[in-house]
Amino acid sequence: MRVLVKELGSYIERSVEVKGWVHRIRELGGISFVLLRDRTGMVQLVYEGKVSFTQESVLSVQGTVRKNEKAPGGLEIHVANTEILAQAHPDLPIPVNQEPEKLSLEALLDHRMISIRIPKIRSIFRVQSTILKGFAEYLRQNGFTEIKTSKLIGSGTEGGTGLFSVEYFDTRVYLAQSPQFYKQAMISSGMERVFEIGHAYRAEKHDTPRHLNEYVSLDVEMAFIETEHELMDLEQGILNHVFRLVKEENGEDLEVYKATVPTADEVNRIPRVTYDEAKEIISKEGGRKVFDINPEGERILCDWAVKEHGVDAVFVYAFPRKKRPFYAYPEGQKTRSFDLLFRGLEITTGGRRIHQYEMLLDALPKFGLTPEGLGGYVDIFKYGCPPHGGFAIGLERLTQKILGLSNVKEASLFPRDRKRITP
Amino acid sequence: MRVLVKELGSYIERSVEVKGWVHRIRELGGISFVLLRDRTGMVQLVYEGKVSFTQESVLSVQGTVRKNEKAPGGLEIHVANTEILAQAHPDLPIPVNQEPEKLSLEALLDHRMISIRIPKIRSIFRVQSTILKGFAEYLRQNGFTEIKTSKLIGSGTEGGTGLFSVEYFDTRVYLAQSPQFYKQAMISSGMERVFEIGHAYRAEKHDTPRHLNEYVSLDVEMAFIETEHELMDLEQGILNHVFRLVKEENGEDLEVYKATVPTADEVNRIPRVTYDEAKEIISKEGGRKVFDINPEGERILCDWAVKEHGVDAVFVYAFPRKKRPFYAYPEGQKTRSFDLLFRGLEITTGGRRIHQYEMLLDALPKFGLTPEGLGGYVDIFKYGCPPHGGFAIGLERLTQKILGLSNVKEASLFPRDRKRITP
Repeated sequence: MRVLVKELGSYIERSVEVKGWVHRIRELGGISFVLLRDRTGMVQLVYEGKVSFTQESVLSVQGTVRKNEKAPGGLEIHVANTEILAQAHPDLPIPVNQEPEKLSLEALLDHRMISIRIPKIRSIFRVQSTILKGFAEYLRQNGFTEIKTSKLIGSGTEGGTGLFSVEYFDTRVYLAQSPQFYKQAMISSGMERVFEIGHAYRAEKHDTPRHLNEYVSLDVEMAFIETEHELMDLEQGILNHVFRLVKEENGEDLEVYKATVPTADEVNRIPRVTYDEAKEIISKEGGRKVFDINPEGERILCDWAVKEHGVDAVFVYAFPRKKRPFYAYPEGQKTRSFDLLFRGLEITTGGRRIHQYEMLLDALPKFGLTPEGLGGYVDIFKYGCPPHGGFAIGLERLTQKILGLSNVKEASLFPRDRKRITP
Repeated sequence: MRVLVKELGSYIERSVEVKGWVHRIRELGGISFVLLRDRTGMVQLVYEGKVSFTQESVLSVQGTVRKNEKAPGGLEIHVANTEILAQAHPDLPIPVNQEPEKLSLEALLDHRMISIRIPKIRSIFRVQSTILKGFAEYLRQNGFTEIKTSKLIGSGTEGGTGLFSVEYFDTRVYLAQSPQFYKQAMISSGMERVFEIGHAYRAEKHDTPRHLNEYVSLDVEMAFIETEHELMDLEQGILNHVFRLVKEENGEDLEVYKATVPTADEVNRIPRVTYDEAKEIISKEGGRKVFDINPEGERILCDWAVKEHGVDAVFVYAFPRKKRPFYAYPEGQKTRSFDLLFRGLEITTGGRRIHQYEMLLDALPKFGLTPEGLGGYVDIFKYGCPPHGGFAIGLERLTQKILGLSNVKEASLFPRDRKRITP
C-alpha cells in the first residue's frame, strides 16, 4: 500500500512503498540521493551507486524509512526496490526544480505543460482551489443556490463591444461577458439568492498584467436588499471565510510566497468611500488633481487605506451613472454600485440593479439600447422582480493578490490573451 | 426584520414582516386569500376586501401570524400593511401557479425567464445545486484539487469533429469538448488528483432528449491507478455522497417529482459487465442479437440490473478500442475504459489513459492524428507521467435521472440546442 510523503513520520524504521516524481538526483561518494516528489511533499531516497532513471521520471519505490537530520524533512528512505513507472526524456525544455522567478513569464507559459510541475507554481492553484471552496461554502451556508447558466448568448447584451463570436450551426452567437442577466432572472424566479462559478470572456485587445481574455467569475446575486452596503457586508463575509480557509489549508503555499491573508479584523474595517471622496483622496495623496480613478489611483487609494485604516483594501461606491452599465440602480447622477480594490487592484464590481420595469424602459434609450435587443431580459422585470443586487469577484485577480503575483496570467492555469491560445 | 416562510411556525400570534411573490389570488365572500411565495415556501395572506396587486407582484407585508388548519401549511397572516415592491403586468405569457406538465417543453423553454418561477421547476435546480456541492465535497475530502482550465482551445483535440469555432482576434479557436488534456496535464504535474466543474461543448446536429450542445461536465482525474475498477470505486463513492446529500437536503424537491435516490447498498452493488457480456445480456433480454449498445440497449441493460442486482444502474467496461478515443489504455483489442448507465441512460464515460510516451506515439497514427496536431499534449507524457485515469459525469443527465425528467433539456436552466440560443 502506497504511503504519502507527509505520512512517513509514522513509519520510521518500517518498510514502505512511495510513489512520485524524481525532483532532483545528486551523486556523492558512490551514493545517489534522489529527491522524490508526491502531491504532499518531498522525501530523499538513498541508493547505492548510480541510478538508471532521469529527472521527472515517475517511480514506485519500496524501502525503509530512516531518520536523518540532514535530509529534507528529517527523513530518508533506504531503497530496496524501484519500479520505473515512466522514464522521462532527459531534454526538459525548462528546469522544474528551480525557483520559477529565474524564468520569464513567457517561458513559463510557453511551456505550461512543464512549468506546472514546479512546486511553487502548483501552490498558486492549491490556493485557488481553496478560494473556490470557501466562496461556495460561505454562500451555501447563507441560503444561496449554485446555478450554471449558458455561456453562449444570442445577442451582445451589455452593449455589443468586446464580445467573441461563435459560429453556431447556421447562425452566430457570442461568448458571455458575465452571467448578469441570468443571475437576475434566477433571483426574480423566487430563488432569491444565487451564485455561479463560471468562465467569462472579454474580447479586449489590450495586454496588461491585470487582464485576461478568459477568466473565472465568482458571481453572486441576492434579492430584497435596499442598498449596496448590504452587498459589501456580504462580500466581507465571503472574504473572511475564504481568507480563514486559505490560512488554515494553505499555510505552506502562503509561506512559499511570503504571503499573508488579511485577518477578519482587517477585512471588517475596509473603509467605504464614495467615488467623489476617492478622487479627492487620490488627488491629495498623489499630489495632483485627478478626474478619474485609473490603476495608479487604485494603488494610491489602497496605500491610503493601509495608512488610515490598517487594511490594504477599499470599497468605492456611488459611481457616476455614465461609468456603469444601464442596469445600475440610479440615484440622481450617481448609482448604487461599488468596486472593491484589494492590494491596489479592483477585484470586484457590483451594485444594486434596477428592478422596476418602467425605470428600466426609461434607462435603455439613454444607453442606446432597446428592449428587443436584450432578448427576454425585460420580461424579468415586467412580471415582478424584487429589489436586488450582486457582484462578481475575479478568481484569478483574487488569487494573484493573495499571493502577491505580479501578473494575473500567473494565476490562470492555461491563460488566454490576444496571442496566447495554447497549450 | 424579514421572517422567512419556513420560520413562521415560531411566530404564532406575533407580528411579522414577510416578503415574496404573489403566487395566487382568490376572493371569497369579501375576503382575499393571497398565497405568498418566498424561497423557503408559501404562506396564505388574508385581506379584507379586494387587493390592488396582480399575480407575481412582489410584496413586503406586515401582519399577524395565526393558526388555521385549512390554510396551506396550517398558518396564515392577517395583513396590517402591504408595500408593493414591484407590480407585475397582468399578461403573464404562461401560468406559473400550475403544474409545468400542463405546458409543452417548447413553451417552458421559450418563456424560460417566466417558467423558472414555477416552484416545481425550481426544485430541479435546487437538486442540481446539491449535486454540485456533493461532487466537490467528496473529492476534496479525498485529496483532490479543484482546477479551472481554458475552454478555448487552439486545435481540434479529439479528432476535430463536432467543435464550435470562435473568432479570436485575427485567428480561430474552438470551444473545448472536454478538459481531458488539461486534467491529464495537471495530474502529471504532481497534483495527482484533480477535478473540474465546467462547461463543455458538442457541435452535434442531432436533437434528442439525451443531448445538449452545451452542458456541465463533472470531471475527475487521478494518478497511480492500475485498473479502471479503481475509478468505478471512486465514482460509487461520489454517487453515494451525492445521493445522501440530495436525500437530506432536497426531500421536498424529490417528493414533488415522486423521485427517490438509490441507497448506498444499491450503489455498492452496481454490477460491472464487460462490453461483450453487455451485448450478450441485451441480446438475451431483448430477444434479438445486437452488435452494438444503443440507447435501447442501455435501457435493457438497466432493466436487467434491476432484476438481477436490485439496482437501476450498470457499469460497462472493456470497450473495444475502435469505440474509444486514442488516449484510452489498450488491452489487446479492448480498452481499460468504462461507461456508467443509470436508470437507462449513460451518465459517465471514463477509463484508464495511456501514460507511456512511446505507446501514445504508436497510437496516434492509428487514429489519424499527429503529435504536432495535439499542441503540447504529448509533452505531458514525454517528461514522466504516472499511470492514471478519470471520468466525467454529465451534470444535467444525472439531475434528469435523479428526478425522472423525460428530457435532459429540462435539467438545464438555459439549454442550447441547434435552434435554441435564447433566452
